[in-house]
Amino acid sequence: MKILGVDPGFTATGFAIIEKENNLTRLIDFGCLKLKPTDHLSVRVGVFYTFFQKKILDTAISNISLETSFLGKNPQAFLKLGYLRGILYLLADQHQLPLHENSPTQIKAAVAGTGSASKDQIAFVVRRIFPVLNQATTLRHDVTDAVAIALSGLFAQSRDQQIQKKYAQR
Amino acid sequence: MKILGVDPGFTATGFAIIEKENNLTRLIDFGCLKLKPTDHLSVRVGVFYTFFQKKILDTAISNISLETSFLGKNPQAFLKLGYLRGILYLLADQHQLPLHENSPTQIKAAVAGTGSASKDQIAFVVRRIFPVLNQATTLRHDVTDAVAIALSGLFAQSRDQQIQKKYAQR
Repeated sequence: MKILGVDPGFTATGFAIIEKENNLTRLIDFGCLKLKPTDHLSVRVGVFYTFFQKKILDTAISNISLETSFLGKNPQAFLKLGYLRGILYLLADQHQLPLHENSPTQIKAAVAGTGSASKDQIAFVVRRIFPVLNQATTLRHDVTDAVAIALSGLFAQSRDQQIQKKYAQR
Repeated sequence: MKILGVDPGFTATGFAIIEKENNLTRLIDFGCLKLKPTDHLSVRVGVFYTFFQKKILDTAISNISLETSFLGKNPQAFLKLGYLRGILYLLADQHQLPLHENSPTQIKAAVAGTGSASKDQIAFVVRRIFPVLNQATTLRHDVTDAVAIALSGLFAQSRDQQIQKKYAQR
């Protein structure tokens, strides 16, 4: 199972790819995609699509995990966030990948044990789980958030599979 | 010049294609795309992408015209509207088409002469301009709105070209 977690944004998009094989969980890729603010919106959307299409194909992604978004101060920025989320939904369809959304509270609870964990706490915990993150010279919250999003997607997926197994054994 | 006007929505998406050749303006295609509410969101986004990609290729579209959206009562529906708009931005990039947005007021003013025109007024005017619309047995506002969106895109485009010509002559 290879889960792609994405925290999309026009300024910076964090992403993380977690692989689970038997009982081994590895963080095999992570980083931050920045889009040029001077490019036309359609060009930025195109760059976003191409970037994640390549990730999906190169890494043979099996699942996509997202965080449910809620309206902030700026409705137009919220609408535009929808453009990037829509691209991930399109890629899920084009590559036949299950796409799972968790709420921010669910993600924080799954990773740090409490739904009210701060971004720093999340960063602390995911660094503990994946020490490879400490090799990065700069580590933005976009990235550590994306790792948490991928992890919570993995937990949800494993839970679903366990339930399926339980039922299959009956 | 062939302008595709789209009024996107998960319940119903109106679309219209207007062709301008010399001084002749024709409505060459119009209709309404309905997405199955029971399909997964990613499937609906995929159907939307495939539908408009085919329209763009089959009709050799040269421009896309959209209406600027504003937050309504339901923020989550507004975010999801962004998914469909994002797909149109992606298609604009993939097919190298200029994409133009006009505000609802600009569109109403361009078509009906007043920014406060009702949907019925818009429908009345676009039926006058394109009598072919009267052949449709049922004509939803999604469709007449899409015709208005395409028309306002055409006007904006023609104006830009006239300005370019004026400068070129100097």
